[in-house]
Amino acid sequence: MDKLKEFIKKTVDITDQTLQEVLPSDTTYPDSIHKLMRYSMFAGGKRIRPCLLIAAYEACGGSVDDKQVQLTSAAVEMLHTFSLIHDDLPCMDDDDYRRGKLTAHKAFNEALAVLGGDALCIGAFEILSRTARVDIIREIATALGTQGMIGGQVVDIESEGKTVTREIVEYIHNNKTAALICSSVRIGAMLANASEPDLQKFTSFGNKIGLAFQVVDDILDEESTTEQLGKDAGSDRERGKATFPAVVGIEESKKYARKLIDDAWNDIAFLNDKGKILHDLAEYIITRIS
Amino acid sequence: MDKLKEFIKKTVDITDQTLQEVLPSDTTYPDSIHKLMRYSMFAGGKRIRPCLLIAAYEACGGSVDDKQVQLTSAAVEMLHTFSLIHDDLPCMDDDDYRRGKLTAHKAFNEALAVLGGDALCIGAFEILSRTARVDIIREIATALGTQGMIGGQVVDIESEGKTVTREIVEYIHNNKTAALICSSVRIGAMLANASEPDLQKFTSFGNKIGLAFQVVDDILDEESTTEQLGKDAGSDRERGKATFPAVVGIEESKKYARKLIDDAWNDIAFLNDKGKILHDLAEYIITRIS
Repeated sequence: MDKLKEFIKKTVDITDQTLQEVLPSDTTYPDSIHKLMRYSMFAGGKRIRPCLLIAAYEACGGSVDDKQVQLTSAAVEMLHTFSLIHDDLPCMDDDDYRRGKLTAHKAFNEALAVLGGDALCIGAFEILSRTARVDIIREIATALGTQGMIGGQVVDIESEGKTVTREIVEYIHNNKTAALICSSVRIGAMLANASEPDLQKFTSFGNKIGLAFQVVDDILDEESTTEQLGKDAGSDRERGKATFPAVVGIEESKKYARKLIDDAWNDIAFLNDKGKILHDLAEYIITRIS
Repeated sequence: MDKLKEFIKKTVDITDQTLQEVLPSDTTYPDSIHKLMRYSMFAGGKRIRPCLLIAAYEACGGSVDDKQVQLTSAAVEMLHTFSLIHDDLPCMDDDDYRRGKLTAHKAFNEALAVLGGDALCIGAFEILSRTARVDIIREIATALGTQGMIGGQVVDIESEGKTVTREIVEYIHNNKTAALICSSVRIGAMLANASEPDLQKFTSFGNKIGLAFQVVDDILDEESTTEQLGKDAGSDRERGKATFPAVVGIEESKKYARKLIDDAWNDIAFLNDKGKILHDLAEYIITRIS
């Protein structure tokens, strides 16, 4: 896995450097919101989505040194962070900590967290417009909308404390989490102008690892300590969240995550050696619980 | 003003029809958020921004029958509505009524209002991507960002209850309100491929009427009854909001609004007869107080 570590380090460095360049400095007026945006963007995120985007791009012959893929990855990470800031708000999941640091509305205040999330969302579309790829803008806006991420968040919140079916949990996870992860993979392939048949395979791969990612997250919430997680452990169960362990149990959840990753590998087998990093990234997602 | 009335009616009809087409139906799953989005989009807005956008487009030779201008106008109105929904939240202006109807978080709930605002913002960019004009996407994202509308909202909230200078009030109004109004005018001209020198004149016109619009709003908040406004009258003063009447008085504010409109007319004098509707729209903004 040494090549993977090297790839992740390089991707994180380039994404962080791009974010440093595109985000207004924290002394730019009005400075409070720029401080919040930078606080949230540099709060220790693992940059999984940029990693997947760039890995798919490179698997199709692109290079991380291309400015277009760097800007797009930074925008995707901004959109992910926007969703986390709003998700943590008191009226939503009401979380005080994320990755061991105070959430935006606790470190600053609620109004600024709403506006800071909005600004990251809008700023991401401004950055995407610089790449002149309207197909990418349409792709990401669709993945984030009410038939994607936001739709998943709505059902997630409305399912709290209710007895839900496995079908509902799959809907939530597929939309709230997998939609943006899958879209990251797809965008990497689209930027490299992958063929439609290949894009279908990347889509199938992306959907599976996106779902696996959230199943693993559910398991971690049950099995880890608060210190390990950097946020309150067991909070899903406490709040009556719709999770995989809640509907099928821990063991079945683990088996399901493993199967999703194995199946995902099959989807990208056609890439042969060029798919090595994507393959290892998928495994990296699941090793968090094994 | 009969031609103006006719123009406004046609624009409102076409904008509403376009919104009906692009917004998911309120039985589309998850239906709660689609209900909220439609509730807020059809809550009696005057569609000032689509009117200005289409008037500028037609002044440059375009026609309201073009699909591109219809989609763009609908997207701009969605972005405006997104900003209102978030602005009304308890952690922001905490308003219960707007245009005589319950605000989104009162009619539904706070979490859904945050997500519904987000979805209108994201949905607007999806619709803009269909027009394949990245220059328009960049224009609107810049107008809405922290160096535009969001920046104005931040300073507005942070100035509450403080003694502020006229300079600060101008900053808030220029960004919170004028940025999107000016951008609507600019986008109309840009869609019609106006020349750079003409675009500069539209920009100057748009900035002035945008500022005048908010000065008039400040005056109305002081002078109207709650019934006339459809929201709490006098609430700006009660909350210690940074307004024009608060820093220069009512009479001076009225004079200033009048002067801004007169100056704005000069900016578009070059349009001659083709600028008639834009001219009348500017007057329409100020007649609300005269």
